[in-house]
Amino acid sequence: MGGNIAHSSGGPRCVKYGTTKDYVLNLEVVLADGSIIDTGANVLKNSTGYHLTQLMVGSEGTLGIVTKITLKLLPFPPYKSLLLASFSNAQMACACVPAIFEAGVQPSAIEFMDKKGVELSVKAQQIPFEFGEEQAYLLIEVDAFSETELLPQCEKIYGSLEAHQVLNVLLAEDHESKEKFWRIRRSIGEVVKQHSIYKEEDAVVTRSYLPDLYEGVKGIAEQYGFETVCYGHAGDGNLHINILKLDLADAIWQNELPKAIRSIFELCKQYGGTISGEHGIGLVQKPYLDIVFNQKHFELMRGIKNSFDPHWILNPGKIFDRA
Amino acid sequence: MGGNIAHSSGGPRCVKYGTTKDYVLNLEVVLADGSIIDTGANVLKNSTGYHLTQLMVGSEGTLGIVTKITLKLLPFPPYKSLLLASFSNAQMACACVPAIFEAGVQPSAIEFMDKKGVELSVKAQQIPFEFGEEQAYLLIEVDAFSETELLPQCEKIYGSLEAHQVLNVLLAEDHESKEKFWRIRRSIGEVVKQHSIYKEEDAVVTRSYLPDLYEGVKGIAEQYGFETVCYGHAGDGNLHINILKLDLADAIWQNELPKAIRSIFELCKQYGGTISGEHGIGLVQKPYLDIVFNQKHFELMRGIKNSFDPHWILNPGKIFDRA
Repeated sequence: MGGNIAHSSGGPRCVKYGTTKDYVLNLEVVLADGSIIDTGANVLKNSTGYHLTQLMVGSEGTLGIVTKITLKLLPFPPYKSLLLASFSNAQMACACVPAIFEAGVQPSAIEFMDKKGVELSVKAQQIPFEFGEEQAYLLIEVDAFSETELLPQCEKIYGSLEAHQVLNVLLAEDHESKEKFWRIRRSIGEVVKQHSIYKEEDAVVTRSYLPDLYEGVKGIAEQYGFETVCYGHAGDGNLHINILKLDLADAIWQNELPKAIRSIFELCKQYGGTISGEHGIGLVQKPYLDIVFNQKHFELMRGIKNSFDPHWILNPGKIFDRA
Repeated sequence: MGGNIAHSSGGPRCVKYGTTKDYVLNLEVVLADGSIIDTGANVLKNSTGYHLTQLMVGSEGTLGIVTKITLKLLPFPPYKSLLLASFSNAQMACACVPAIFEAGVQPSAIEFMDKKGVELSVKAQQIPFEFGEEQAYLLIEVDAFSETELLPQCEKIYGSLEAHQVLNVLLAEDHESKEKFWRIRRSIGEVVKQHSIYKEEDAVVTRSYLPDLYEGVKGIAEQYGFETVCYGHAGDGNLHINILKLDLADAIWQNELPKAIRSIFELCKQYGGTISGEHGIGLVQKPYLDIVFNQKHFELMRGIKNSFDPHWILNPGKIFDRA
């Protein structure tokens, strides 16, 4: 979808370290008329004029071309624990996510995976994996600057898991196990692609509404007869919803899919959220932007676009139309 | 200077927790024509359209009136250590600031105070305080979720202090001492006000240039015959420079002060920085904005202002003029 710095694929990320935009301190940008500006300065704090840096991040190449980025760096925490928790009830897994934060832990990642995604992933990669009655998983990572800081965090997480009817918890004992767990998670996107024609949505809601979102999505899928694979950055309230075509007739897929997607995004809005957490809007999500933005919001964005790119020559047609 | 959410006074803040704007997830804004928008959504991640939330933060009431704010919250770290370190050389104190971060510590605050500021503060508040040959101080706070995490951080800080010719380090042993140290720091702004007519600048530079900024500011002050008190959020590269009128003739103050300020801000620009770290621009810093922004930058900001407030009725005259 082009130009969205906030996007990267599959890896862990979480509110603990903020979102990508929080790391961008300054940008050198070439504008539509060929002139060059620094959007900010190479400083950690800046209250000098409008925040053009943050306006540029996520603008998907429609306001200018970024030619230099100054990022804030943080020390790397060398110690990590990784837990894979299974649940017989997917909503319960979702409900456990905010509970972990409420217990005072700030995990470096909480990733949700439903059973279908894990099944496809381990099968495609021939990873030995035992399935029981579980319907969903949470992959939870905590990090620290000393080993002694890990255990108290894990204990709090165990408490939250137990309070949410966890079936089983696997602690990755060594580097190899950690890699295995992460490989299962990271491959889901790719294996879904190989499995079926699909459409991925990048839903994001207020974290406490994750169980409602999950339940709602499954209800909508059932209504339209679609199979879905859900996974993603649950710690951020961000769920990737892959809708699979499988054996559905082309006509159903083409006619019914946009309706199902609209229903899903209306749910996101209802639960405090919006239609893209990290993937951006581009061309594909453009038809759904009216769900979250009123006419005035479009006017403001068009006004900004007009000031930056009066002839609309930069990445034309992306995010919203000229009128 | 109005409307700048990023501003708060005197307390500690540091890159560890990001800047204020990073906590603002969503805003309800009343626009110039009376219409109302949500700039974003109540979510931790959002890649849906332009980042109007971050554009609004720090726009000083010129783009709309904020009527609701959704903030991200982090758990409060209950354990803190506070150190007051003195240096015979103020540049050395400044040079120690980036060294502490390079040692792998992320303090919750590093505040710089030159001797004059501490002298005025303890005298005004009748705080018993012994002075020796020191010329500047660093007040350094670290925080943690367990007491055992504090000592390793303090040890690293001691290492950096010793490598920068520290004279003396006082560890605040109890709540009362911590309060005393913070009171000295927090009162400087007020006591300077009582002491003399003054002008405060909110300089911010790339952290590693703090010693150069300090040396440059003192040189400029000497050149113009001004006395200065420097203090502030050194951990953020943010230094408040108070220029004192004292017994100077009104004519000198009025004619020479703007030249001195321009020289200081040109230094900030030279050292990767800008003219306001947290106080904003308002009316007072407006004449200096051309130091950091080119004509195109002003055009873009005017274009944004035009889309949000076509009749320029919101906080008129602030930050920049209509043409």
